[in-house]
Amino acid sequence: MGTINRQWILRERPVGVVGPQHFEQVKSPMPQPDLAAGQVLLKTLMLGFDPAMRGWLEDAPSYLPPVAIGEPMRASGVGQVIESNNDALPVGTLVQGLMNWQEYSIGDPKGMIPPTALPAGTPPNLALSVFGSTSLTAYFGLLDVGQPQPGETVLVSGAAGATGSVVAQIARLKGCRVVGLAGGQEKCEWLRTACKLDAVIDYKNEALQQRIGELCPEGVNVFFDNVGGETLEAGIAHMADFGRIVLCGAISGYNDVAPKPGPRNLMLLTSRRIRMQGFIVLDYLDRADEAIQALTEWVMNGEIAWREDIQEGFDKIPSTLQRLFIGSNVGKQLLKLADPE
Amino acid sequence: MGTINRQWILRERPVGVVGPQHFEQVKSPMPQPDLAAGQVLLKTLMLGFDPAMRGWLEDAPSYLPPVAIGEPMRASGVGQVIESNNDALPVGTLVQGLMNWQEYSIGDPKGMIPPTALPAGTPPNLALSVFGSTSLTAYFGLLDVGQPQPGETVLVSGAAGATGSVVAQIARLKGCRVVGLAGGQEKCEWLRTACKLDAVIDYKNEALQQRIGELCPEGVNVFFDNVGGETLEAGIAHMADFGRIVLCGAISGYNDVAPKPGPRNLMLLTSRRIRMQGFIVLDYLDRADEAIQALTEWVMNGEIAWREDIQEGFDKIPSTLQRLFIGSNVGKQLLKLADPE
Repeated sequence: MGTINRQWILRERPVGVVGPQHFEQVKSPMPQPDLAAGQVLLKTLMLGFDPAMRGWLEDAPSYLPPVAIGEPMRASGVGQVIESNNDALPVGTLVQGLMNWQEYSIGDPKGMIPPTALPAGTPPNLALSVFGSTSLTAYFGLLDVGQPQPGETVLVSGAAGATGSVVAQIARLKGCRVVGLAGGQEKCEWLRTACKLDAVIDYKNEALQQRIGELCPEGVNVFFDNVGGETLEAGIAHMADFGRIVLCGAISGYNDVAPKPGPRNLMLLTSRRIRMQGFIVLDYLDRADEAIQALTEWVMNGEIAWREDIQEGFDKIPSTLQRLFIGSNVGKQLLKLADPE
Repeated sequence: MGTINRQWILRERPVGVVGPQHFEQVKSPMPQPDLAAGQVLLKTLMLGFDPAMRGWLEDAPSYLPPVAIGEPMRASGVGQVIESNNDALPVGTLVQGLMNWQEYSIGDPKGMIPPTALPAGTPPNLALSVFGSTSLTAYFGLLDVGQPQPGETVLVSGAAGATGSVVAQIARLKGCRVVGLAGGQEKCEWLRTACKLDAVIDYKNEALQQRIGELCPEGVNVFFDNVGGETLEAGIAHMADFGRIVLCGAISGYNDVAPKPGPRNLMLLTSRRIRMQGFIVLDYLDRADEAIQALTEWVMNGEIAWREDIQEGFDKIPSTLQRLFIGSNVGKQLLKLADPE
């Protein structure tokens, strides 16, 4: 362990697609070694990437404060305790929490998302993929907000993504008929065979509106939408009476310079008595154990498939974020910085 | 009672603003006199008019089947029983229900909205205005869907309308701070003085977005929206975290030839965890008594103000519907055909 801590700080706010040009690599001194009570010094092992991170770069009040210009970029991550002033997190412990794009950081129990120990034996990649925030988002968004009933039809956009693929599979495990939307043959094939969806629509090669109608002749009871824009409009058009639309984010608009108009068919929300509801997984963190327990059981029994796209190396952090928005990632986007010691 | 029953039938589906040219007056024979068990023959005394009627003219499946070309137009109304095969509704009884634009009709207990007797002494106009479907819409939409809590801020669009004015006053009676949106000084003055709203915005003469922000500095907890379009977008922009948007219809778009784009800021539904929900009052008819009881108490105690715009005469029926969409009506739009006998 040297005396230098490399960081990626926000250089300027992106307008349009976020990329490496918006960040700057700097060398800072190692974080303060005299740890306050409860604090730990963490070595970052792995970082997770999520479309929601794009929102943290906007200079607007939201559910988390914006990352300031000149501050290190924020990210979920797994780290290893290398110095500790916290009996619950002795040196060597692997923890996860909200970290930064930097090699070393102070983990503080009073932070926004404090570091918590990984269950013994959990590999860092799994902690951030199938047991990570995207899976918690899937679990609580689908079950708490969407409230699917057995036999109902669930439509999932971004179905090959880290969140969407888990949503689709939980819906299947709860006895629903699941139709997924994804772009390209490879993703659709994976959803059909590995994730065992009832039907998949390749929105890049099929007529989205028409195919949803054909595959959901009784209408959609729960629409879990990651995408927004035209996809949201197409889903609304086929909602059943008393349907629920779960809004988890809208990746189609994250990099827009100016916001696009919304769906033209919102009046259907009234005539079909539809509930459209947004949510943020942070509101459910006190119930994370419930989700992790269910996910663990499904993973152990081989009932959930997932994929990871693991990049490697500190220099590649900003370009790895960009992968999410140009469609390069296949599965949960991760980046490995170091192995546990 | 003659042998002729005048009717207004739908001649062609409106494209754009609905008007008299879309209907045709015809003379039909009196309805079948041999009444089946439970049926009554009704003389129409008064008709109610509601923006939702515009939707019944569209050739698209919705919560009620479309009115067919050549069929009489459907409307809520009050009638008097003039022949009866129903012990609960003897000759002379005043009833309300879903009627048609015609002088006489068969009231059938198996109809979509069967005729029910008015409480003794209720004038027909009150049955269709402050005790009518618009007030039931206000009651259940605000309380059941919006779930306002005392001390919360409630924003109401179309606040001078039959539904909006009752929503705003129920919200006040439930201990909320109420901000109403209406067009023009006269309507705003009525909302301030007679309806006792906390604040009113004249959207025709004030900067809507900015004024909502100024008058709702902590954000809007419940937004009851009658209007849609830019009004909906302006409301969304000022929603508080965990706010509820009640969609009751969208009069701004009812007469559009092509649907307009929706709000550009739907992504706020996610970051602020907003629930946006449509509803139809027909789903609450089995709980109508609860609403009527509460409304009666408020009316008796002088705690709710309302206004009526009563047109008169069979020939004026189609032009009276149009009044709703060109902003001519002040208060609940009614039309009187006959006095009770």
